[in-house]
Amino acid sequence: MSGRIDARLDELGIVLPKALPPAANYVPFTLAGGLLFVAGQVSVTADGRRIVGKVGADLTLEDAHEAARACAINLLAQARLACGGDLDRIAACVKLGGFVNATADFTDHPKVLNGASDLMVDVLGEKGRHARFAVGAASLPFNVAVEIDGVFALD
Amino acid sequence: MSGRIDARLDELGIVLPKALPPAANYVPFTLAGGLLFVAGQVSVTADGRRIVGKVGADLTLEDAHEAARACAINLLAQARLACGGDLDRIAACVKLGGFVNATADFTDHPKVLNGASDLMVDVLGEKGRHARFAVGAASLPFNVAVEIDGVFALD
Amino acid sequence: MSGRIDARLDELGIVLPKALPPAANYVPFTLAGGLLFVAGQVSVTADGRRIVGKVGADLTLEDAHEAARACAINLLAQARLACGGDLDRIAACVKLGGFVNATADFTDHPKVLNGASDLMVDVLGEKGRHARFAVGAASLPFNVAVEIDGVFALD
Repeated sequence: MSGRIDARLDELGIVLPKALPPAANYVPFTLAGGLLFVAGQVSVTADGRRIVGKVGADLTLEDAHEAARACAINLLAQARLACGGDLDRIAACVKLGGFVNATADFTDHPKVLNGASDLMVDVLGEKGRHARFAVGAASLPFNVAVEIDGVFALD
Repeated sequence: MSGRIDARLDELGIVLPKALPPAANYVPFTLAGGLLFVAGQVSVTADGRRIVGKVGADLTLEDAHEAARACAINLLAQARLACGGDLDRIAACVKLGGFVNATADFTDHPKVLNGASDLMVDVLGEKGRHARFAVGAASLPFNVAVEIDGVFALD
Repeated sequence: MSGRIDARLDELGIVLPKALPPAANYVPFTLAGGLLFVAGQVSVTADGRRIVGKVGADLTLEDAHEAARACAINLLAQARLACGGDLDRIAACVKLGGFVNATADFTDHPKVLNGASDLMVDVLGEKGRHARFAVGAASLPFNVAVEIDGVFALD
């Protein structure tokens, strides 16, 4: 835990959760074509609290923003595992695919996803700038507020 | 039809359907950056029956699980075509993107997608373990229950 | 502006809009693993008009088809920027991920997405043939009718 990115996480007061083991016949990440594909991470905080509910009805924009940030932290936790513990091996956050558990008339998906995008840049600096999409899902697993998958490049 | 994976399909009693030709100006798969991108496959069984309906209302979890399995079989059918018929050239199933045609209060998307994930590992073994996302779509083409796209690595 | 693809855009009477700068801590495109990942582009026409509304309720299929075409034009505008202005460097449109802001009973997502798929082939020829998915989103940013992200290969 002595890398540059680890130090940055410390500065920000962010503790990455232990990456969860596979729950089924899928895995949290795969490496192919020089890219790291991280499975969809849901809005569960490092202390195990699920952020659930429909954005635009049950949850405020602030709640949803925090939910997206939690997904991003969970993506980094998986990326750390993929890097053998050395987050400095992340060359870039390439893409985030963001799904917001939203009502039919919700329109602020980009502001929700900024919770994840800002976290990536706060932690990874310029290497954290990524392409992304932000869309509304009709429903999400366990009624979580946000699910985000990611593609990273590793050194 | 003499490969190792073909033999495994025989053991499982799975007949891959003839991969459908492109219906429009898109194609069922592309190869780039060392990866095979397979277009979204919908829940149609090998005998041409569409599994349709809203999961959480019209369809049970078991129906939806079968629908996801059908999508996975159709992904393999396209991958076989991309491999020139030799499924042993599949180095890995890298990622599945799973969309469930679900009600707003459905929460069991992971159990649905397991129908596809289990099929991949049943057929491809360890090479079948993939990253994935599982989300609820507001609606899907032809009212199918599930649509899944995939990324594979080829040898 | 003297390339082969530029000439083809002229023939088609298509003016690519100026690619919009990043609005947040994400960027319009990234390059990794030999691929160009373009962020989700929404249905805004070259003259700045947003095509908004729920497909299947507020918008006809024709409106939605035009919306998908506008997304594709915006994807090409970002790809041009990524290519340093030289669209002839696009080796292939690899994949489009299509989200339609649709009602729960809408079923014609493929016809909507054809607006984007046809545009890619009209402009890029055989290099424009791509894998894709087409799904219904519960809602989209700013209530736009369509959002599409893209993966391209560059020479």
